[in-house]
Amino acid sequence: MTDIARIEAAAGRLEGHVRRTPLLSAPGIDRIAGRRILVKAECLQITGSFKARGAWSAISALEPEARARGILAYSSGNHAQGIAWAAAAHGVPAVIVMPSDAPGAKIAGTKSYGAEVVTYDRATEVREDIGRVIAAERGMTLIPPYDHPDVIAGQGTVGLEIAAQAQEAGIAAADVLICCGGGGLSAGIALALAAKAPDLRPRTVEPMGFDDTARSLAAGKPLRNAHLSGSICDAILTPEPGTLTFPILHRYAGPGLTVTDAEACEAMALAFRHLKIVVEPGGAVALAAALFRGEGIPGEAIIAVASGGNVDGGFYAETVAGA
Amino acid sequence: MTDIARIEAAAGRLEGHVRRTPLLSAPGIDRIAGRRILVKAECLQITGSFKARGAWSAISALEPEARARGILAYSSGNHAQGIAWAAAAHGVPAVIVMPSDAPGAKIAGTKSYGAEVVTYDRATEVREDIGRVIAAERGMTLIPPYDHPDVIAGQGTVGLEIAAQAQEAGIAAADVLICCGGGGLSAGIALALAAKAPDLRPRTVEPMGFDDTARSLAAGKPLRNAHLSGSICDAILTPEPGTLTFPILHRYAGPGLTVTDAEACEAMALAFRHLKIVVEPGGAVALAAALFRGEGIPGEAIIAVASGGNVDGGFYAETVAGA
Repeated sequence: MTDIARIEAAAGRLEGHVRRTPLLSAPGIDRIAGRRILVKAECLQITGSFKARGAWSAISALEPEARARGILAYSSGNHAQGIAWAAAAHGVPAVIVMPSDAPGAKIAGTKSYGAEVVTYDRATEVREDIGRVIAAERGMTLIPPYDHPDVIAGQGTVGLEIAAQAQEAGIAAADVLICCGGGGLSAGIALALAAKAPDLRPRTVEPMGFDDTARSLAAGKPLRNAHLSGSICDAILTPEPGTLTFPILHRYAGPGLTVTDAEACEAMALAFRHLKIVVEPGGAVALAAALFRGEGIPGEAIIAVASGGNVDGGFYAETVAGA
Repeated sequence: MTDIARIEAAAGRLEGHVRRTPLLSAPGIDRIAGRRILVKAECLQITGSFKARGAWSAISALEPEARARGILAYSSGNHAQGIAWAAAAHGVPAVIVMPSDAPGAKIAGTKSYGAEVVTYDRATEVREDIGRVIAAERGMTLIPPYDHPDVIAGQGTVGLEIAAQAQEAGIAAADVLICCGGGGLSAGIALALAAKAPDLRPRTVEPMGFDDTARSLAAGKPLRNAHLSGSICDAILTPEPGTLTFPILHRYAGPGLTVTDAEACEAMALAFRHLKIVVEPGGAVALAAALFRGEGIPGEAIIAVASGGNVDGGFYAETVAGA
C-alpha cells in the first residue's frame, strides 16, 4: 500500500538522482487563462518525464539479488525510458516491451539507455501477457507502469514538491490538474497533497474518448475505454484505471476533466511560446484544461503538471510552426 | 562600477521577481560531448531570457521620480522584453527601439507587456542615436542593453546561481561558456565567479563572423565586427564589445570561442530532444561550443548558459523537424 510514509521514503531514495523540477509561469499564459497558472515542468525531469521517479523508486527498493537479475517493463515510452535509465544507473539489465506504434523518439530514447526493446501490436496483443512471459523466462522483476506501490510512491514525490513550491509561490488553495493515464502520477500526487497540502485539490485530465478515469470517478467504479488507440496523447492511453490507483483517486481526487487533441496541441504551442518548455501531447492535457476548460475550475490560481516532453521532432514542428 | 557587492545587492532586489533557473543535464547530451555538460537554462527565465534580470536590476535601482517618467531601451528583442516586463511590473511606461528585422515573436512579446515599440533599419540607422532623441524628448531614462553598471550587476546574478549550483552538482572546476553579444551577461557572470568560484572559468561564445569579443580578448583591445547582420543569432550581434563590459572580460574571461550558425541550430535540436527546453539560435551558441568545440576546452565537465528561448515557431519548426 502506498501512503505518505512510503512517498517520503521514496523521496529519500530519489535525492540526488532525480531533479526537483521548477514551477514555471509566464505573463502570457496567465493572460490567456485569466488567472495565475503555475506549471510543474516534469518534462524537464531526467529522461524527459516524471516516470524516472517511479522507476528509480521501485528499482532502488528491490532486494539486491532480485535487482541483479534485471528489470522488465511494458510501456508506451516514458515508463520505458525511466526504467531503462534507472536500471542502467543501478548497473542491471532491462527489457522493455513497447507498442510498435510508439513515437520513434521514445523507442530511440529507451534503446539509448542500453535497454533491450521488444515491440508488440497495440491492437492485437496484450502487453501484460508478453511482459509476464519474459519475466518468467529470464527471472527478471516486472515493474508495471502504475499499479505498483513503490512506483506510485515515486510519482508522489511530485506532489511533495508541488506542496512546497505552491507555498513558496504564495498559493494556499488551488486545483492541481494532472495528466492521467493509468493513474500512478495522479494517485501519488493525490496522496502527497492530502497529507501535506489538503487545500491543493488533485484532479485528473484525460483526452476526450479516453476518459476512463473521469467516468470511473463519476460512476464510483472502474469503467473501461471503448478504444485503445485514436488519440495523439500516446503517453496516457490506458484501457481502464489501475487496481491500486483507482481506489486512491476515488478517495482523494476529482472530478476528472477532459480535453480534445486540438486543445492539447494548442497547449503545446503556448508552452513553446511562453514557457520555453517542450511538452508532448499527453503531457500537455493538464495545461490545456487550465487554459481552455477553466469554466469548471474554481479559484484564482491553477497548478498544472506538464508530465513529459518526449515528442518526435516532426510532429512537434507541425504543432509549433505557427506559434 | 560593477563589483560583487553590486551584484549581491541586485540579487536582493531580484528576489521573488525573477526565477532561479535550473542547471539541467541529460545522459544523451553527455554522451555526445563525451563528458558532463550542465546547462544553465536561462531560457526558462521570466520573459524567456536572462535579460529580465538586468532590466529589473536597473529599473529597481532608479530614483522613484526618474522611474515614474518611464524607461527607454534599444534592443533586438530580449532586452526589449525584459525592460517591457520590468517597467510594467513597476507601473511605469516603456518605449523600446527595435530593429525592423527582429523576430516577430520578440516584437509581439515586447508589445504584449504593454510597451510602445519603435522600429528602425539595422543597416542604415544607429539605435543609440534614436534612443537618445526619444529619451531627451520624453524625459525617459535610457537603460542600455549591457553598458550599464546595474544591468551588468543583474546579469551577474546568473553567476551567483551558477557558483551555488555547480557546488551542489559536485563540480569544483569547469569552463563556463556564455553566449556573448555586448558582454553584459558574460561580464556579470565573470565578476560573480571571480568572487565566488574562481575555479569556474568564464569564456565567451559568439557566432562565426561576429566574434568581436574573442578577437578583442586576443588582441587586448576592443575590435569591431566587419558586418552588423548575416547570422541567425540575432540576439548577440553587436558591433563591438561594450565600454564597461570589455575591461571586465579582459581581466576575468577568455579565451573566446566561436561556432557556426549550423552548430547553433544543431545545439537547438539537441536541447529540444534531450533537455526539453526551447533555445533560440543566439542562446544556443554556448551549448554548441560545449558539444562541438570541445577540443579547446579542458576538464571533465562544462557549464553552458542557454541564455534565451525567444524564437519564432516557423524557424524553430525547421530546426527541430528532424530531431
